[in-house]
Amino acid sequence: MHTIFLKGDAVVMIDQTRLPGSLTLHTCETVECLIEAIQSLRVRGAPALGAAGAYGVFLSAIAHRHRTHEDFVRAVSADADAIASARPTAVNLSWGVDRQRNVFLAVATPPEAVTALRQEAERIAEEDVRTNRRLGKAGAALIESGDGILTHCNAGALACVGYGTALGVVRAAVEEGKRIHVYVDETRPLCQGSRLTAWELQEEGIPATLITDSMAGYLMSTGRIHKVVVGADRIAANGDVANKIGTYGVAVLARHHGIPFYVAAPVSTIDYALSDGSGIPIEERDPDEVRRWQGVLNAPPEIDVLNPAFDVTPAYLISSIITEEGVATPPFEASLRRFKP
Amino acid sequence: MHTIFLKGDAVVMIDQTRLPGSLTLHTCETVECLIEAIQSLRVRGAPALGAAGAYGVFLSAIAHRHRTHEDFVRAVSADADAIASARPTAVNLSWGVDRQRNVFLAVATPPEAVTALRQEAERIAEEDVRTNRRLGKAGAALIESGDGILTHCNAGALACVGYGTALGVVRAAVEEGKRIHVYVDETRPLCQGSRLTAWELQEEGIPATLITDSMAGYLMSTGRIHKVVVGADRIAANGDVANKIGTYGVAVLARHHGIPFYVAAPVSTIDYALSDGSGIPIEERDPDEVRRWQGVLNAPPEIDVLNPAFDVTPAYLISSIITEEGVATPPFEASLRRFKP
Repeated sequence: MHTIFLKGDAVVMIDQTRLPGSLTLHTCETVECLIEAIQSLRVRGAPALGAAGAYGVFLSAIAHRHRTHEDFVRAVSADADAIASARPTAVNLSWGVDRQRNVFLAVATPPEAVTALRQEAERIAEEDVRTNRRLGKAGAALIESGDGILTHCNAGALACVGYGTALGVVRAAVEEGKRIHVYVDETRPLCQGSRLTAWELQEEGIPATLITDSMAGYLMSTGRIHKVVVGADRIAANGDVANKIGTYGVAVLARHHGIPFYVAAPVSTIDYALSDGSGIPIEERDPDEVRRWQGVLNAPPEIDVLNPAFDVTPAYLISSIITEEGVATPPFEASLRRFKP
Repeated sequence: MHTIFLKGDAVVMIDQTRLPGSLTLHTCETVECLIEAIQSLRVRGAPALGAAGAYGVFLSAIAHRHRTHEDFVRAVSADADAIASARPTAVNLSWGVDRQRNVFLAVATPPEAVTALRQEAERIAEEDVRTNRRLGKAGAALIESGDGILTHCNAGALACVGYGTALGVVRAAVEEGKRIHVYVDETRPLCQGSRLTAWELQEEGIPATLITDSMAGYLMSTGRIHKVVVGADRIAANGDVANKIGTYGVAVLARHHGIPFYVAAPVSTIDYALSDGSGIPIEERDPDEVRRWQGVLNAPPEIDVLNPAFDVTPAYLISSIITEEGVATPPFEASLRRFKP
């Protein structure tokens, strides 16, 4: 099953806020519903947000299909802007929306636009799974049988339409018959590691051990981690990588222990317009995500909190960036440029 | 109020598993009750465990006071062994028990032993607060007005009989009129940072911000952390430090960013019998501490988990070790030897 897909004129997604307790589908028939789903992380992960953005523009077109062409373009453009800015960090969201913008600006009538937007959204979703399989195969070449692999957050099938990026590399290595063991850090505050990655790996029967974020350094010092593989929310032209908060810390620890640090992401995650990571906007989320866990108070209720959802790992800490077009190595400015569409 | 104290013949402690939601006292009249309280972390923190161990031997003496002297010594010795091994990592627990062993082996009758053990336990508790005040004053000299200080876990008044070690340094600096801001990481899995340290600092009116463990690296990269101050559960003769899991990772991050990393602990935490940290036993705790949070499932219920409660930070990552006898600097083998009682 895909993480997000069309059913008739509605967008259906696995509600990732309910895992691992419950595998529930969430259906959106309006742009407002989809934006709420993006902001509350029912759908999350950079590649999945690319598809969600594209599906959102389709929902907008359905809603405005009976307007005049001029009104239609104005209304769908406004919705597209709103969808693209639902979350700031992952570039894939606006990438998916922009692919749809090219579509609806190129056709003559609203009904034609609806048909073309449905096709383009489905194409983006199908491409995502194919892209991840190619990316996984490219990355699997870096993995050896016997490896202990640490991953942070969820860059799995759930973060994409299917197969996954970082976990796509893991899946491809396992499909090649390599014996690997995945160490999953829980990824506070929203526990995408313990809730989503651990669940995905258990469903697939891939050996996995859950740790807290604070155990990564200790585990590296014991020699059990041979590689780190993570996803990305936005990659600057120089190879700086924005990803889930804590990624930077894991990268520093990997460097200290001489462990390769790999980033796995589709080319759509590369923001060639940004020269380096200092220009990537970092989303600051609700302090109660840190103070409470599923409603249970975990801290004094009024304590001041910082809750950045992402950090930027500078290129010098990254060994390789794995994409569907191949594996980029430093210097990334040159190697990533070769993948530019 | 002290974290742990005698009331009549009973040991009373703040139940630290109930904070910050509820400030509840827990009373133990038996050794079994005290061991349960130590193992379930109702009382925790290396210096507090020193006092708890001493009070535990007193409870044993009360229970066996009507036996013959020979039976009394045999029974109290057995209880002392059980108390000392209730948790393996913090050396202070057996240090407190051993101080009592010297007492009850030196007196002629059980009633004399009861009196002497009560006095020695009270002396250990009072010494702890005085020790921490001296330690705090010594450490405060390293803190400058305007500093952002990161601490991990709880090395506060709650971890001691009173005042605190790492937070003792913070308190002393504030008492000297220095403006400081404390960054508190939550310290998964049991959240001693968010539950205890954040609560203590808020009660004292010391400016504090709560973060997840994974945010430490990001915060250091933004320049907001000027110093790290943590406690210790056991310090080897060469300066290797066992402390709450995650301390090692914070130390590596501090080194990467050129930030001083200070350990604050009483001399009783130094295990001069251990040449280095490789000999420190690391407690492995219940996997459900990671899988669940206060009963709420946070991961697949059957997922494999590693849950070491401590890690060892090698001496080369430590800038100074702050004790009540003064501040030790590298090479620690020589500087710590000068504090040997």
